[in-house]
Amino acid sequence: MSRPLFLVSNDDGYRARGVHELTRLLAQIGDVIAVCPEGPQSGKSMAITVNEPLRLTEINDYAATEPTVKWYHVNGTPTDCVKLAMHTLFSDDRRPDMVCTGINHGSNASINVIYSGTMGAAMEGCAAGIPSVGFSLCDHSPSADFAPMLPYVRQVVEAVLAKGLPEGVCLNVNAPKGEVLKGLRETVACRGHWSDEYAEYTDPHGHPYYWLTGRFINEEPDNPDTDDALLAEGYVTVVSCALDRTVKLPSIF
Amino acid sequence: MSRPLFLVSNDDGYRARGVHELTRLLAQIGDVIAVCPEGPQSGKSMAITVNEPLRLTEINDYAATEPTVKWYHVNGTPTDCVKLAMHTLFSDDRRPDMVCTGINHGSNASINVIYSGTMGAAMEGCAAGIPSVGFSLCDHSPSADFAPMLPYVRQVVEAVLAKGLPEGVCLNVNAPKGEVLKGLRETVACRGHWSDEYAEYTDPHGHPYYWLTGRFINEEPDNPDTDDALLAEGYVTVVSCALDRTVKLPSIF
Repeated sequence: MSRPLFLVSNDDGYRARGVHELTRLLAQIGDVIAVCPEGPQSGKSMAITVNEPLRLTEINDYAATEPTVKWYHVNGTPTDCVKLAMHTLFSDDRRPDMVCTGINHGSNASINVIYSGTMGAAMEGCAAGIPSVGFSLCDHSPSADFAPMLPYVRQVVEAVLAKGLPEGVCLNVNAPKGEVLKGLRETVACRGHWSDEYAEYTDPHGHPYYWLTGRFINEEPDNPDTDDALLAEGYVTVVSCALDRTVKLPSIF
Repeated sequence: MSRPLFLVSNDDGYRARGVHELTRLLAQIGDVIAVCPEGPQSGKSMAITVNEPLRLTEINDYAATEPTVKWYHVNGTPTDCVKLAMHTLFSDDRRPDMVCTGINHGSNASINVIYSGTMGAAMEGCAAGIPSVGFSLCDHSPSADFAPMLPYVRQVVEAVLAKGLPEGVCLNVNAPKGEVLKGLRETVACRGHWSDEYAEYTDPHGHPYYWLTGRFINEEPDNPDTDDALLAEGYVTVVSCALDRTVKLPSIF
């Protein structure tokens, strides 16, 4: 294969540490164009901007540290970034060989995948017919240590470049926090939900307001083969996700 | 069954015609609590508000026309509406028997389902373990005629109340525009994508900006059994959607 072309996006915004760990790694393998939100866009799922204009802005902040990476930001969601990048920066002659998103600061395992902007961007790459993978580290810290995860990111990228992915399927890759990781496991999303989801406050006028928080409840704590369980054991998890959610059920009519 | 309790939300905002068509219909069947976005939230998928506080505001605008419906708005996304409603308005003693969202002004068939705020709210109801259905009419007009669709909305609601839905599955119901509908069909989401997605403009300073638009491409135009094809034939379509997107693939490592 000739030098592969990567489109990179994320949901923590173009300044986040995780995406630069990703672009620097991918720049060792191929050409990289990064198109990220101007600011944090966590929890944006596959949201698209319908009622506002979007701008794509080239940025040169990383010319010294990442001389081969082309950097842009967009005033929209992660999915907007991928859509607008595909519209403006690529042609049928040279489309990305792969869309890589993240590395997210925080887990996108279990039910988090459905709210994740990182995975929203990967899903959009998948919708465009490009092999796409979202990467996340289970550590929300802005200064999280991504180094232990990077060999696994490379392993996943090289496998996908070599073997491709089925149409309509992308990958959700999560790594636990920690210096020693045990290896890579292909698994399934753990059944789970969030509980106690809002902290309640009262403003100076006596009116309540609510801030999203919550506690994750693993609904299958005795199953050792879910992404949540394997992450707790120190494995990097890979879950295949279908864009199309259709299931066939017996008729209810 | 005692009188059922419905939680209603939408993505066009609490003033939209479609949601009032839905609440008035459901008020004939049971008790209704409607919690909708303060303004339009189309294309918000399952986005959640992470970095801003949310407010839940009771509104009395519809006391005369919908005396039995309790109305609230939220300064957030459709998924926020369902999450915050579940947190503040319901208890384990009385949870909603069903979450109904819409009626959306515009199609959520085929790939639209993944971007849809209406379906995001239904998915959130599903994540909370409640039988949930999103309803959409393939007509974007603010003054769209929902009357031909309403008997089918009732049919779906009554079937779901009677038979329930499997855990982790919700329904995406779409109706074509038109006075005469041919009936209800359980089907699958059509494979398709959007093309020519942005209109390009130039601002007075010579800088480009982009506005989402596009043209839907049906990728299986010869398949008569997709939601897109059946809608074109005049049928109301019902597609079952799984919350969990996990698929099992042969290893790529």
